[in-house]
Amino acid sequence: MELAVNVLVSRFKAYASIDGSSDTLSRDEFCRLISSELPNFVKNAGDPAAIDQLMSSLDKNNDEERNFLGFWQLIGQLASKHGGV
Amino acid sequence: MELAVNVLVSRFKAYASIDGSSDTLSRDEFCRLISSELPNFVKNAGDPAAIDQLMSSLDKNNDEERNFLGFWQLIGQLASKHGGV
Repeated sequence: MELAVNVLVSRFKAYASIDGSSDTLSRDEFCRLISSELPNFVKNAGDPAAIDQLMSSLDKNNDEERNFLGFWQLIGQLASKHGGV
Repeated sequence: MELAVNVLVSRFKAYASIDGSSDTLSRDEFCRLISSELPNFVKNAGDPAAIDQLMSSLDKNNDEERNFLGFWQLIGQLASKHGGV
């Protein structure tokens, strides 16, 4: 399990490092990550409106950046739905 | 990333299925999972007191069972500390 967790952390870091702050995902980084890495978890992963809705649910302070724990929470919700747990 | 998420979901299910409800982790299931699967993430993973403290932080309604999202949240906190994100 530690290996799997490390994969998720390293992918988050890789996408967060594309532009600006390397600790958070910008709107563009988030879109890229979702469509490239979680295409089967997010229905309509290629649909900008669907991505917008997901992003808004994460971005509590409306600064258009998502930190790791917010991102992790979203993945958990997707995993819960997808995995039926 | 989907593969890594699926590994975490399936490990949760495997441990949750050991006894009682297969949707939640009992105290014993939680101990086994932490000590077997996350030994490097949890300092003193073999120490019952440390595990007790972790469990209490998850078990919001004091029923000694942890559901997937509660479990996921804990892993995120450990991953954040461990991975420096």
